[in-house]
Amino acid sequence: MDRLKLVESDAPSDVRAMMLQLGEAARAAQRRLATSTDAARSTALRAAALALRDRRTAILDANVRDMAEGVRRGLSPASLDRLKLDPSRIDAMAHAIEEIAALPDPVGRMLARYERPNGLVIERVATPLGVIGVIYESRPNVTADAGALCLKAGNACILRGGSESFWSSMAIHECLLEGLAAAELPAAAITLVPTRDRDAVGAMLSGLRGNIDVLVPRGGKALVGRVEAEARVPVFAHLEGLVHLFIDRDADLERARAIVLNSKLRRTGVCGAVETLLIDQAVAATHLAPLVTALIDAGCEVRGDATTQAADPRVVAATEEDWRTEYLDRIIACRVVDGLEAAIDHIASYGSHHTDGIVTENLETAEAFLARVDSAIVVHNASTQFADGGEFGFGGEIGIATGRMHARGPVGVEQLTSFNYRVRGTGQTRP
Amino acid sequence: MDRLKLVESDAPSDVRAMMLQLGEAARAAQRRLATSTDAARSTALRAAALALRDRRTAILDANVRDMAEGVRRGLSPASLDRLKLDPSRIDAMAHAIEEIAALPDPVGRMLARYERPNGLVIERVATPLGVIGVIYESRPNVTADAGALCLKAGNACILRGGSESFWSSMAIHECLLEGLAAAELPAAAITLVPTRDRDAVGAMLSGLRGNIDVLVPRGGKALVGRVEAEARVPVFAHLEGLVHLFIDRDADLERARAIVLNSKLRRTGVCGAVETLLIDQAVAATHLAPLVTALIDAGCEVRGDATTQAADPRVVAATEEDWRTEYLDRIIACRVVDGLEAAIDHIASYGSHHTDGIVTENLETAEAFLARVDSAIVVHNASTQFADGGEFGFGGEIGIATGRMHARGPVGVEQLTSFNYRVRGTGQTRP
Repeated sequence: MDRLKLVESDAPSDVRAMMLQLGEAARAAQRRLATSTDAARSTALRAAALALRDRRTAILDANVRDMAEGVRRGLSPASLDRLKLDPSRIDAMAHAIEEIAALPDPVGRMLARYERPNGLVIERVATPLGVIGVIYESRPNVTADAGALCLKAGNACILRGGSESFWSSMAIHECLLEGLAAAELPAAAITLVPTRDRDAVGAMLSGLRGNIDVLVPRGGKALVGRVEAEARVPVFAHLEGLVHLFIDRDADLERARAIVLNSKLRRTGVCGAVETLLIDQAVAATHLAPLVTALIDAGCEVRGDATTQAADPRVVAATEEDWRTEYLDRIIACRVVDGLEAAIDHIASYGSHHTDGIVTENLETAEAFLARVDSAIVVHNASTQFADGGEFGFGGEIGIATGRMHARGPVGVEQLTSFNYRVRGTGQTRP
Repeated sequence: MDRLKLVESDAPSDVRAMMLQLGEAARAAQRRLATSTDAARSTALRAAALALRDRRTAILDANVRDMAEGVRRGLSPASLDRLKLDPSRIDAMAHAIEEIAALPDPVGRMLARYERPNGLVIERVATPLGVIGVIYESRPNVTADAGALCLKAGNACILRGGSESFWSSMAIHECLLEGLAAAELPAAAITLVPTRDRDAVGAMLSGLRGNIDVLVPRGGKALVGRVEAEARVPVFAHLEGLVHLFIDRDADLERARAIVLNSKLRRTGVCGAVETLLIDQAVAATHLAPLVTALIDAGCEVRGDATTQAADPRVVAATEEDWRTEYLDRIIACRVVDGLEAAIDHIASYGSHHTDGIVTENLETAEAFLARVDSAIVVHNASTQFADGGEFGFGGEIGIATGRMHARGPVGVEQLTSFNYRVRGTGQTRP
């Protein structure tokens, strides 16, 4: 089929021309989606989920091809694990799509409605955002998640997956196309860039002549950094998750221990994993050693300031760089601070406005922390690893936005909508 | 004072260095504002309004200086009128600030609150956006409006006014500073760029090393175009208002006449003024001539297609360019279209997604128009000139956004906020 022909023989100029065509097709599809029904969009999603289960073998074959190429290209074990699909991961993908299909229609929600003294009735109503460009890496399931979330919200999307997951994404995309066809929705509603040529990314960053309304980078720091630096269209900022957890002087030690261990070690590769532990000097004597020892005994390297090093001989000396590092690994930085103010100052200087938490039994202190730490998600007495669209009840997320424009925190279907004002009158003219 | 010294002796490098300093000061002020109370911010605004009335003479003197320079530089009568201040305009400015002060606190609004099955309570709470850069032209009242709206929402702002209103804006800014001082809020919370050097605009477009979070251009097409093309930070898109009014086959002629005349002629220089009139072919025989004649008799030039020209000998022939022109003048383009579909297509091809209206007694047709026209504001049976933050009950606006990201339509204090998630637990860890 020509999609594959394209893959084999791309001169850069061909690629740019092809991308502009994809943009125009996506815009046309988005205009049709804007007036589609939630029933049609959800039918497409359910049919796509069925197709994912039916075509399991074909998807696994494609994944084997990606894995083989990945091994040849010397991908890290971590990357290979992110890339690997198995029947249960495919089921999980299909299930996630079915959950998104079952969500209430995010389009047409009445966000506000009021009547003016002159009798005009003004409504603010949720509308699709438009055409969303998603640029991501290795995990092939993003192809299914992102496509489903965008479609549910009435948006067309142009997906540019990681080259290492190319064949898996193509196979998954076939299922999404089958779903769109089943609901008689345009195939261009979910477009997968059918080439690994890097010029395709450059074309997306330029906005495809106004045919991409917003870009969502999903992947490592390098990818996100490039997109934010070079994009000529709005970007849902996704900075790293340099997550802090502050153990306040009124923290219960047992509760703190459970939350610290879960926030760091449940999974170390997620953006909600804590990277820096801040402990109130007032409880350093009682809380520091037990928490540090628990972390080290659980197999986590601790890099600490002088006080922390004194608490356990196995603590490594932390450098300034450690306060700025998102390890995404079994490593944590630990610093003793002089109370709430110092903790908030540290977070303001080193944080990434993603997720930060406090453990304390003092509600006043907790409220001050929640009100004053300027992060997308602030947490009191719970694991920072709850920073996740699914855990927030969004039925999946396309990422966690750290900017303050439009979307902040987990970006689910509601955050993938815009709105407009519908004014109904009875002949009113303005004096 | 040094602010004035700066004005006189600016080498470009001085300007860029100064702008970076202003950015850092604004960020520091914004951090303080983020935890300020609505009472303090509103006190500052009421004190600023008082100061505007007290310093009326100084402001008028400064305005005389701007007007004299404007005449020397040969500004158009329209520009001079936008620039001119008189006691009533100063009172209106003070009154507008008092209205903004009286608005409910937009910060800390609970936008959503729900409990998860695991007992976590999640709140979405409105927060300030950050530091807002406003780049505007001639009208000196924007200095007061924009400063007041940003402050009310807990944002710091950096205002870059038009060089032609420089002295008036400086005098108005003195009043805003007096208000901030009265409430013991940092002066840098409302910064007016104290130089006319154009390098200051370039510096703002670059984002002042991350110290401007969003730019709001307010002015003509050239200014807005440059900001949207060159800004390295998010921009509240403000395209022109190429406003359409569609007279449907089920429109009542008298109602249509009143709405057409008001939409076009109440004020021709506002972005909500209609520029293109679309008339359903089905009622061309009965509605076209009366509407066209009413417009021409009221002193409006009509540029029409062949059918429109046949309706009144005074109609000028319209060219393709007329369908793309925002006249902001006593001129209107008029075209006969084949029903709702053709009207929607015309608006999709030529519109600017600002404001578009329909006149019809057929509710089904009206709802189809409201649902399918992709504009920030869609209006049924009312004047398009209601496209205004004040008329929407927002207590003033900083502009009308035509993009789909974050803010759309009139940008009032609520649109100048962001939000974050506050998660309260009782020790929950993630399985």
